Amino acid sequence: MADEFDVIVIGGGPAGENVVDRAVRGGLTAALVEERLAGGECSYWACVPSKALLRPIDLAAEVSRVPGMSLGPIDVAAVLARRDEAVSNYDDAGQVRWIESVPAELVRGHGRLDGQKRVRVTTDDGERVLTARHAVVLATGSVPQVPGVPGLKEAAPWTSHEVTAAKEIPERLAVLGGGVVACEMAQAMHGLGARETTLLVRGGGLLSRMEPFAGELLAEAFAEAGIDVRLRTGIERVERPEPGGKVTVHLSDGTLLEADELLVATGRRAATRDIGLDTVGLPAGEPVEVDDSMRATAVGDGWLYAVGDVNGRVLLTHMGKYQARVCGDVIAARARGDELPAMRDLADAYGSPQVVFTDPQICAVGRTERMAREDGFRYRVVDYDMGAVTGAYLLGDGYRGKARAVVDEDRKVLLGVTFAGPGAAELLHAATIAVTAEVPLDRLWHAVPSFPTVSEIWLRLLETYGL
Amino acid sequence: MADEFDVIVIGGGPAGENVVDRAVRGGLTAALVEERLAGGECSYWACVPSKALLRPIDLAAEVSRVPGMSLGPIDVAAVLARRDEAVSNYDDAGQVRWIESVPAELVRGHGRLDGQKRVRVTTDDGERVLTARHAVVLATGSVPQVPGVPGLKEAAPWTSHEVTAAKEIPERLAVLGGGVVACEMAQAMHGLGARETTLLVRGGGLLSRMEPFAGELLAEAFAEAGIDVRLRTGIERVERPEPGGKVTVHLSDGTLLEADELLVATGRRAATRDIGLDTVGLPAGEPVEVDDSMRATAVGDGWLYAVGDVNGRVLLTHMGKYQARVCGDVIAARARGDELPAMRDLADAYGSPQVVFTDPQICAVGRTERMAREDGFRYRVVDYDMGAVTGAYLLGDGYRGKARAVVDEDRKVLLGVTFAGPGAAELLHAATIAVTAEVPLDRLWHAVPSFPTVSEIWLRLLETYGL
Repeated sequence: MADEFDVIVIGGGPAGENVVDRAVRGGLTAALVEERLAGGECSYWACVPSKALLRPIDLAAEVSRVPGMSLGPIDVAAVLARRDEAVSNYDDAGQVRWIESVPAELVRGHGRLDGQKRVRVTTDDGERVLTARHAVVLATGSVPQVPGVPGLKEAAPWTSHEVTAAKEIPERLAVLGGGVVACEMAQAMHGLGARETTLLVRGGGLLSRMEPFAGELLAEAFAEAGIDVRLRTGIERVERPEPGGKVTVHLSDGTLLEADELLVATGRRAATRDIGLDTVGLPAGEPVEVDDSMRATAVGDGWLYAVGDVNGRVLLTHMGKYQARVCGDVIAARARGDELPAMRDLADAYGSPQVVFTDPQICAVGRTERMAREDGFRYRVVDYDMGAVTGAYLLGDGYRGKARAVVDEDRKVLLGVTFAGPGAAELLHAATIAVTAEVPLDRLWHAVPSFPTVSEIWLRLLETYGL
Repeated sequence: MADEFDVIVIGGGPAGENVVDRAVRGGLTAALVEERLAGGECSYWACVPSKALLRPIDLAAEVSRVPGMSLGPIDVAAVLARRDEAVSNYDDAGQVRWIESVPAELVRGHGRLDGQKRVRVTTDDGERVLTARHAVVLATGSVPQVPGVPGLKEAAPWTSHEVTAAKEIPERLAVLGGGVVACEMAQAMHGLGARETTLLVRGGGLLSRMEPFAGELLAEAFAEAGIDVRLRTGIERVERPEPGGKVTVHLSDGTLLEADELLVATGRRAATRDIGLDTVGLPAGEPVEVDDSMRATAVGDGWLYAVGDVNGRVLLTHMGKYQARVCGDVIAARARGDELPAMRDLADAYGSPQVVFTDPQICAVGRTERMAREDGFRYRVVDYDMGAVTGAYLLGDGYRGKARAVVDEDRKVLLGVTFAGPGAAELLHAATIAVTAEVPLDRLWHAVPSFPTVSEIWLRLLETYGL
């Protein structure tokens, strides 16, 4: 029958789409199985809508620092409408056209592995069985993890999915978590009108995987904006007698917090519970471990791959897409009988770049100081006050920010760089190139930052290092 | 007498200051001769005030693209006050303290070479003769060049100096020129209230040294803002009967243009007319040619150096500062008897980075297509629409921009990169690193831009190239 393809990809988010794109460019045929909207979580319920909601907040903060400028109140309905536009009104017709143009076949339905090189898809009309000549790729992403706190699940809290799709802004929002989603969405909702926004953070700081100063700067900004951050705070129990009604959160310190909505942003898990992993001898519910060619290490004959969140390497869209490009190229090369070593995931090992779109923006690539220490490097840390850079001063009054470079003292290259400051997001790629390409410091010295940009922080870091 | 120093620097702008800083760090004593304000043109009458004036215009343009945001009128007095703050109210006390802290001696007055290793300074009190043990460094910068058009000089037009220090915004401003200063200041004055702003451009486009699309995008933005750009337009004669009064410009097409102020921004020349070049056998009024250690090539015994605009290499503050770091290090090394080849100007040869702080912002590093062709490279041009990058779309509606990479096809490295688009300034340093460090394309491929930043343009350029 016609249901045979060179490559079958389960999961039509950005990672799955990129696999299909690269594999087809490499001369293969491909099917993409997606149960919900083609384009995936990122396009509709994560990166894209969250940034559409954050943009006016970010810009309003920039304006507030420039004397002579004044902003009218933000028209929340217009912001939500722009968010709806950014997510194509939750319609994937554009993505479907793109998939057709690859060309690849979009199979709508829930896909499950069904033994070696077979995928069984439950569609609206019944079932379709697809077989793969070369490879099956898992790209099912991840789902929010809701902690097992009494009453929490029953309270039907928001996750990233619901908060990014909000139709109105809750008056009082409680946020469980202190990571990227928690921080971004707390700031977005607060900026768009939440009167009481409270972050309940189990640990001792925000953004705990990043350099400590990043979370500290953000906590200062939250305090100034009136966002209540409660560190070392667990929750014991949640009550929500009326669906969609008032929520009461019982905190670990014995107090109560009342809110109109509760956002749970305490992490995600690989979406592998119901994709037939058992049919190929893998444990359901766990990430699928892969090698640097994205091939599942625990499956014989090398036909199964996994890209993006589902392999548990790193939960970032751009890294999933990168892995997908590697994976698509590798599958096409192997189908030709090639084994090109250049097509491997090199980037994850350096430490993935990441941007937190709060104000201040936080971005980092490579290793933090702690990671450098744990990994046994002989390193030196170089810090510099970003507000002391002329280009930052010219962006506005009271620019506060900080940069850190972690230098490998043996090889004189950068192990990691973190920037925390307003509008810092686009500073990151220079660091990503420097870290990933291992550009020696004495070469970076001749890459002159333009005056007066914020990028002059590069000069200051290198001078401070001693160049 | 005590007027002997290891190094004497004539000109206390950013370049001169950096020479002194590096030379003193290298163990030498130094004097810095400055006639006007320590800190130089850049700090008071160029980069810094111009960016302070442009910031609200730029930000207003960003806000105008974000649905749900609305801006009140710009308070021009507040903007001018912020500009005054940025230039320290034209007071150099802070710079003087910094020079003392180096430590170096600031000698106030007009410095002139007086034969080998001697500098004669005309001070308020008379004259001081300084002698240098090792080196004299010229860092006198450049001055605006006013074309020899009848009546122009007599009309006492504004140059960059006056426009950046404007106390009020002219109702009708005519701008002579189409380069960086002309474009930046036309947009600043127009955004701050000039009712009629007219650019008179001799050539066929704006920003003629950059990729043609940069000037075209800017011209579109000017047209939409109501700034009148007249290309291929010369001026024949200027009349200004009353000092500071109405100006009438006779154009080459026979028509007249009336304005309240005229800004001349047609280039600059090295400030070498009155610095005693004749006493060391160099032609007055010309740039001082130097080698890659910043040493004047036409002067024997190697004691004379020139950094920044005065050597004619490139008229950019950050490159002058870079040359100054090289120069200060070289002088200190040579004083020790070292000849470290690593301390050389490598960056100018690649093509200096430059940012134009208009909206759209234009930035470029390395070679344009034309330069690559003229220099005989086998190259390929890769273009990409920046507005098609998700990160750009999320910044606002109707983001328009374009990126170009010029690839060396023999070595597979970047010869040059240009970005033109709103908020593009901070994108540049990634390109500066890639070009200056000659990072191979197949390594850049593993430097993953974060989603959804505008930096994803890097991925698109590399994909378009064929990676």
